[in-house]
Amino acid sequence: MTRWEPNARGRLELAALELYSERGYDQTTVAEIAGRAGLTERTFFRYFADKREVLFYGSGMLQDTLVQGIADAPDGLSPIDTVGTALAGAAELLEERRELSRQRQVIVAATPELRERELIKLATLAAALADALRKRGVTDPAASLAAEAGMAVFKVAFQRWAGQDGDGAGQTLAQIIAESIAALKSVAAAG
Amino acid sequence: MTRWEPNARGRLELAALELYSERGYDQTTVAEIAGRAGLTERTFFRYFADKREVLFYGSGMLQDTLVQGIADAPDGLSPIDTVGTALAGAAELLEERRELSRQRQVIVAATPELRERELIKLATLAAALADALRKRGVTDPAASLAAEAGMAVFKVAFQRWAGQDGDGAGQTLAQIIAESIAALKSVAAAG
Repeated sequence: MTRWEPNARGRLELAALELYSERGYDQTTVAEIAGRAGLTERTFFRYFADKREVLFYGSGMLQDTLVQGIADAPDGLSPIDTVGTALAGAAELLEERRELSRQRQVIVAATPELRERELIKLATLAAALADALRKRGVTDPAASLAAEAGMAVFKVAFQRWAGQDGDGAGQTLAQIIAESIAALKSVAAAG
Repeated sequence: MTRWEPNARGRLELAALELYSERGYDQTTVAEIAGRAGLTERTFFRYFADKREVLFYGSGMLQDTLVQGIADAPDGLSPIDTVGTALAGAAELLEERRELSRQRQVIVAATPELRERELIKLATLAAALADALRKRGVTDPAASLAAEAGMAVFKVAFQRWAGQDGDGAGQTLAQIIAESIAALKSVAAAG
């Protein structure tokens, strides 16, 4: 018999991020995460396949949000502004997770296995964005380039937003993304 | 006593690419590669740390070429044209390796471990390009964005150049990179 635990996923995530930060990712076990959250290992495995999944379970939703954002973007936008609109939509969902994202960022940066997984996540997102652009009639190489450049913007903006250095501390992720899209346009300006 | 073998590295690389293509990367051993090349395993390990290294030994030279290309680029270029100049220089070195690159591309795409390693390689190159741009006085986020966007161009152009579909078959890598830089500018044009 399973007892329902209020917000078990959120408690497990918080406990995992605390332990990964305190002891390191490699040194933390699922049993310790469940214990810190006051839950059982069995409950942990109802929400996450393994301890890495705690850091990546949001990617599927992020991808769906971005793909839907591209499909729903107004007609007549340039490819990069289409991607920018989708990124802005995703940014709103992430905004309340800034402190969690900051902690996650530090943990991922410290562990080679997690850095690799993060690169795979970003490459998968770029491929999904390119497909979504093609469905809007954007041809290659424009679709691939806009998608890859868009993910570059997302990566750079996300790091600034979640970064510890206080740079951009007063700005929302959506604002930083808008600035980064403008910076990309300036960087790539013909001339 | 070691006998000198003419072009041992090149023979080992050819043998490895043949075997990876015929049997798959995972199913090929170092002993088989050495045997196909008419060399010993001991000779193999004088050139490569392991069988994966055969597919990635060029990354260090590619990185040095790109970083030097950014340092040597004419003054007054925009960040993206600075990166474009460096990519064009690297493209000349790769041009004679088109058939090898095509084979390598197919092998990497077929093996998750190699796809991950390729993503790490591209991320490492992007970080090196961004550093080289900062040394020229380009500030962030422009340096990071130009480097990441430049690597997106390289990835898309390289795939087209090395691709099997015949698209761009009559063009050099340098030409395809120049076209892709132009496409990026068009994709990212303000408007």
